[in-house]
Amino acid sequence: MSTNWSDRARALDRRAPLAGLRSRFALPPGLVYLDGNSLGALPTGVAEAMEDVVRRQWGTDLIASWNSNGWWDAPERVGDRIGALIGAAPGQVVVADSTSVNLFKAFVGALRLRPGRSVVVTDPNSFPTDLYLLDAVAVLLDIEVVTVPPPEVPALLDRRGSEVALVALSAVDYRTGERWALPELTESIHAAGALACWDLSHAAGAMDVGLDIHAVDLAVGCGYKYLNGGPGAPAYIYVAARHQVDFDQPLAGWHGHAEPFAMGAVYEPAPGIARAKVGTPPVLSLLALEAALDVFDGVDLMVLRDQSLSVTGFFLDVLDALVPGVEVVTPHQPARRGSQISLRHEHAHGVVQALIARGVIGDFREPDVVRLGFAPLYVTHADALQAAQQLQAVLAGSEHLDPAFAQDRTAT
Amino acid sequence: MSTNWSDRARALDRRAPLAGLRSRFALPPGLVYLDGNSLGALPTGVAEAMEDVVRRQWGTDLIASWNSNGWWDAPERVGDRIGALIGAAPGQVVVADSTSVNLFKAFVGALRLRPGRSVVVTDPNSFPTDLYLLDAVAVLLDIEVVTVPPPEVPALLDRRGSEVALVALSAVDYRTGERWALPELTESIHAAGALACWDLSHAAGAMDVGLDIHAVDLAVGCGYKYLNGGPGAPAYIYVAARHQVDFDQPLAGWHGHAEPFAMGAVYEPAPGIARAKVGTPPVLSLLALEAALDVFDGVDLMVLRDQSLSVTGFFLDVLDALVPGVEVVTPHQPARRGSQISLRHEHAHGVVQALIARGVIGDFREPDVVRLGFAPLYVTHADALQAAQQLQAVLAGSEHLDPAFAQDRTAT
Repeated sequence: MSTNWSDRARALDRRAPLAGLRSRFALPPGLVYLDGNSLGALPTGVAEAMEDVVRRQWGTDLIASWNSNGWWDAPERVGDRIGALIGAAPGQVVVADSTSVNLFKAFVGALRLRPGRSVVVTDPNSFPTDLYLLDAVAVLLDIEVVTVPPPEVPALLDRRGSEVALVALSAVDYRTGERWALPELTESIHAAGALACWDLSHAAGAMDVGLDIHAVDLAVGCGYKYLNGGPGAPAYIYVAARHQVDFDQPLAGWHGHAEPFAMGAVYEPAPGIARAKVGTPPVLSLLALEAALDVFDGVDLMVLRDQSLSVTGFFLDVLDALVPGVEVVTPHQPARRGSQISLRHEHAHGVVQALIARGVIGDFREPDVVRLGFAPLYVTHADALQAAQQLQAVLAGSEHLDPAFAQDRTAT
Repeated sequence: MSTNWSDRARALDRRAPLAGLRSRFALPPGLVYLDGNSLGALPTGVAEAMEDVVRRQWGTDLIASWNSNGWWDAPERVGDRIGALIGAAPGQVVVADSTSVNLFKAFVGALRLRPGRSVVVTDPNSFPTDLYLLDAVAVLLDIEVVTVPPPEVPALLDRRGSEVALVALSAVDYRTGERWALPELTESIHAAGALACWDLSHAAGAMDVGLDIHAVDLAVGCGYKYLNGGPGAPAYIYVAARHQVDFDQPLAGWHGHAEPFAMGAVYEPAPGIARAKVGTPPVLSLLALEAALDVFDGVDLMVLRDQSLSVTGFFLDVLDALVPGVEVVTPHQPARRGSQISLRHEHAHGVVQALIARGVIGDFREPDVVRLGFAPLYVTHADALQAAQQLQAVLAGSEHLDPAFAQDRTAT
């Protein structure tokens, strides 16, 4: 049985069109890294790029680098490269701040684009920061937040659509790994006259998204998951070209000014996506992200998505055969899966720790979820098989009940 | 004459207690770098620290680094180290976001600490981003912004003090290099029952500030000027301990939550300064800043201030002798100087470019200012003499009128 799975994994990896790309990452040998949905692996070129940025650009070229080494334009330049991965034509994505701060800009900006509408809709199971920021904006602007799961959004819009300014959702649920129907939901949001803001943190870099083609209004996402930009890599924000002239966000920093070096006393937003910039960006982190994006050179997003579905599908098949009792939270239908598989287990924290002890890195999410991310550029079918086999061994040996693996609430 | 100045510069540098610290920086040989008030020079240990962060912490330790390599606590840890340089006891400073974003938190937070007061006061000559953010907050919270130069703040408070919630000023004027009287102004702000927010961007790392001892309420600043944290290094925010429990800022991101990994749906701010954190910080830039702060090890802030005043004072003396006609904007009185000397010149842009061509790096600020920053850890009296002599040569040869040095408004 086990031999058969090994053969099948090997055959699938041999056939995989992206198989060679694993060599673009500096992964520790032998490690099965299934946490690229939290922190992407290190692309091989980044360390050298950082060395150049620190020693030559900063150390030698100093202040001149803002022009000569392209620091000033980096947010737009890197933004366009991310744009290519999420279906956005150039000039609509800029790298800036954190995802949380970009959510704030997008939420206030959206509400100002829809004056007279005082309801925003979101998913009660969104990533917490999305909910917190929306609540904070609701207090500032005196609006009502209504939470319904994404499948119920159309029905809600049927009832209250004329009041709704904005629907803010995640393309992929961070906990369950479910991929929501972005095209259809965006369409129903537009039918109500509302705007759609999508958080792409758990989608970008693992699948096609198609922002332009689906007429998405606003989007945000982080740079450090499937985009592999490094820990806390700067985030990005997408404002569709048609909204930019009226996009009015309250973080009016000098980098978003039409003429930042005129040093005028009155804020005049830059004409394009640059108005979503705020203060001076963290250049080292920003240029690490830029270097990291090289791993996507020549990658077709449909092939990337196929690879993701092939590995997660294979993992589900193996799981079904080797660990049939485990509860899979992520939908089995390919169209409804992101690039992670989440399991529910009473002792989820212990399971994750026991897997880590066996060299399979996943993570735990409250209250009872084991998250296993399959970054399609570097996670192989062989890794997926390893993960399932180690999970089988952990559960068979009750290793997850080891008191050493009990939950410490202060740990990440 | 010139020989005398050289002897004097050498003698002053020999006697300077911080003279040895220049070796802690990787400055290009022969360069007179007077732009540390815009981008601090590269401290020697940073490149190695970055290599470790990228290759070992990110590449090998991966997601575990949030705990094992102290990424999660870095904002508070580095914040406390900056706190030591600005007179703040531990637990009151956190590194996060950009200065602009921190201004937003500080402004809204201050207004919520003073409900019922609807006026904020600032300096019309503040750095633009400070003005822009205050205007943006005024729109959001329906308050009035009144601008007066810092010396006129007490008289304004005499007239309208009971309406004033917040006075937001810079410790050192970014353009003129004038240092304002933080202790006295803070006292008069408190006498009116208002809060004081100080922007320390052009002060921290070049002089003592004394936030706690002067009972400052809020402060912000950037990490990339005299703190040498690297291009766009993350900024910091100070919230005095007595205000923290009521400090309510609207960028309610998950890193500021009391229990971020409980993943609860409702924002509950962390009990201390951590509530000023928002999203995931740019770890590479943050840890570069941390490594950069090592250059301050063992540095007494009073000695640092003495060194700064000695070099700028010497520069003013040489200027007076060699280029007597040039207009100095910065006050001559030591107590009223920051760590930069600003000159006013009709062709300021050309002067800066001609100086750069001669290996003296300063910068230009609209409309007619030449800024020369004297970072006390690495700018010597010999550098100051060089700068004055090169300025003399530029003006004598009318090099600043070279059409090649004409102003291009798109350049930084």
